[in-house]
Amino acid sequence: MKRTALIMAGGRGERFWPKSRRSMPKQFLSLTDDGKTMIQLTVERISPLVDMEDIYIATNRDYKHLVMEQLPGIPEKNILCEPVGKNTAPCIGLGAVHMEKKYGDAVMMVLPSDHLIKYNSIFQSTLEDACNIAEQGPNLVTIGITPDAPETGYGYIKFLPDQTFGRAFAVERFVEKPDLETAKGYLATEQYLWNSGMFVWNVSTILAQIREFLPDVYEGLERIEAAIGPADEQVILEREFHKFPSVSIDYGVMEKAKNIYILSGSFGWDDVGSWLSVERMKTSNEFGNVVNGNIITVDTRDTIIQGNDKLIAAVGLENMIVVDSPDALLICEKDHAGDIKKVLENLRICNRSEYL
Amino acid sequence: MKRTALIMAGGRGERFWPKSRRSMPKQFLSLTDDGKTMIQLTVERISPLVDMEDIYIATNRDYKHLVMEQLPGIPEKNILCEPVGKNTAPCIGLGAVHMEKKYGDAVMMVLPSDHLIKYNSIFQSTLEDACNIAEQGPNLVTIGITPDAPETGYGYIKFLPDQTFGRAFAVERFVEKPDLETAKGYLATEQYLWNSGMFVWNVSTILAQIREFLPDVYEGLERIEAAIGPADEQVILEREFHKFPSVSIDYGVMEKAKNIYILSGSFGWDDVGSWLSVERMKTSNEFGNVVNGNIITVDTRDTIIQGNDKLIAAVGLENMIVVDSPDALLICEKDHAGDIKKVLENLRICNRSEYL
Repeated sequence: MKRTALIMAGGRGERFWPKSRRSMPKQFLSLTDDGKTMIQLTVERISPLVDMEDIYIATNRDYKHLVMEQLPGIPEKNILCEPVGKNTAPCIGLGAVHMEKKYGDAVMMVLPSDHLIKYNSIFQSTLEDACNIAEQGPNLVTIGITPDAPETGYGYIKFLPDQTFGRAFAVERFVEKPDLETAKGYLATEQYLWNSGMFVWNVSTILAQIREFLPDVYEGLERIEAAIGPADEQVILEREFHKFPSVSIDYGVMEKAKNIYILSGSFGWDDVGSWLSVERMKTSNEFGNVVNGNIITVDTRDTIIQGNDKLIAAVGLENMIVVDSPDALLICEKDHAGDIKKVLENLRICNRSEYL
Repeated sequence: MKRTALIMAGGRGERFWPKSRRSMPKQFLSLTDDGKTMIQLTVERISPLVDMEDIYIATNRDYKHLVMEQLPGIPEKNILCEPVGKNTAPCIGLGAVHMEKKYGDAVMMVLPSDHLIKYNSIFQSTLEDACNIAEQGPNLVTIGITPDAPETGYGYIKFLPDQTFGRAFAVERFVEKPDLETAKGYLATEQYLWNSGMFVWNVSTILAQIREFLPDVYEGLERIEAAIGPADEQVILEREFHKFPSVSIDYGVMEKAKNIYILSGSFGWDDVGSWLSVERMKTSNEFGNVVNGNIITVDTRDTIIQGNDKLIAAVGLENMIVVDSPDALLICEKDHAGDIKKVLENLRICNRSEYL
């Protein structure tokens, strides 16, 4: 069966402030040493599995020019602009109806645009396995990550160790982000994996699931599909999208569906959730510093400095994050990395949207 | 007798990097809340004692435009540009011969341009006392600061408690910057004051002393004085200055001279030696932060942030110094403030003079 991919790139993540902005979110930033942006790496990674003309990018109008600039090989008609963000279920549905219109049915990989993967060959072979399972029936395949800590920032997926489908396990249930004690309990059972937000299924399978669990969304998607091509495509898309509920594919479909299988990914996954993850991605020097830009360090250790042309002199720093951008500078103690959102709240409250 | 003042403003101090530069040293910066620069405050402080036309500024050619901009009330001919820095003895001699040429003799106050004084009225009355002593004979009067700690960064002056001249004490000797143990010993004697670098004497007195202890300098000064006015003034000044030894008035004259008296100053003196002194000069907020500019702080304490228009977000900082300038940014842990010079050494070694 034809293989297609939907890369979700509409996120407005703010944890990489001040480099990430509403006008330049994380997926369009280069955070690795190779200079490629997250979304470029995502496309490169699946290019052995999917033709460029079958890769779709779901984003919004504000980012369309960034997608076109960064991914000149993707046909413009494959850039699907959501008129308004309605979480992942309508987004995935939009991708699915475009694929259905083009191919009738196809295998559909759904991938975030802002994760990092270290071992591309293992990732590709895992996706191969997922495609094979998807092709063999109305199966929903997801990729889970083996936890290395009781993280409270991820959803978890419980699998049934004795019900297998090739290398995959049957999924018992999806669970939301747990508290620390619950997460520790999950790890102790050895039956929970992190929800990576990566899925593989047939277009016909996911549309049937949306029809069952989100019938209103399905009807809207049918109207959108019928309008693909004609002059009123944008008008219909706009109207239907605004009517959609905001609902995630996890909550709207996966928590209720059957026939879900999970493959455990061991390809070195990182969701690059904050500036701290830059340490895992970039090369640190002998003092444990990860620096980029025009930097002088004196007695400075275990510090991340991301600058540009401006000279940054760091003297006596330890465990700090310094990120410079043309109009804003962040200086943050590493243990306070989660408090960057307080800066953004402050900016919102004070109506200083030029910095958001 | 006519009262004149020589303000020494040729220093190229680098301890306020990156705000202070070779092209914009500390005396031309505003470091207090009132927005006035150090040299403007210095002139304002003596204006009740000396007419503007009798205030001389010794500096170098690079800073002449700064003096003219910041002190429009000072006549241009009173801005004395040293062709090359030769420490304080030739500088003071140059001021003295200009005053001698104009008035024959006069009382001459010698003042640094980059110190801060909290109580101007006490300062002015101390200078009054000093002028009175100077007028009464060939006396060299200096102003000493009562130490509040065994500082090793200042020179010390030992006085003789039982030999007084009005409110002043006779000076036994000048001593160079001591080590910590020596400084502690000085304080224990209760006979040592810090050398503030402020002097008052008659023009005739200091020139006689220079003639005695630095005869070569004196001869050069005589040639310079003779050339004031004629077309070859600059040529002579240039030639003589290059021949001068580099020698401080302390080492060249004060350590050898007699008839030295010291007045203890209790006017709230601060030599504003590093960014740390900004805390003593500016108002701190409830968290002990001293901030200027476009700043957001989250969980940040006892931190100095000196910015401009660029947004600076400080998250989880404690005891830090952050100074932003258009082309360079300093982030320094307070205990490492003395290591800022290592940054400048690094810049010099790497020939990155644009940042010096």
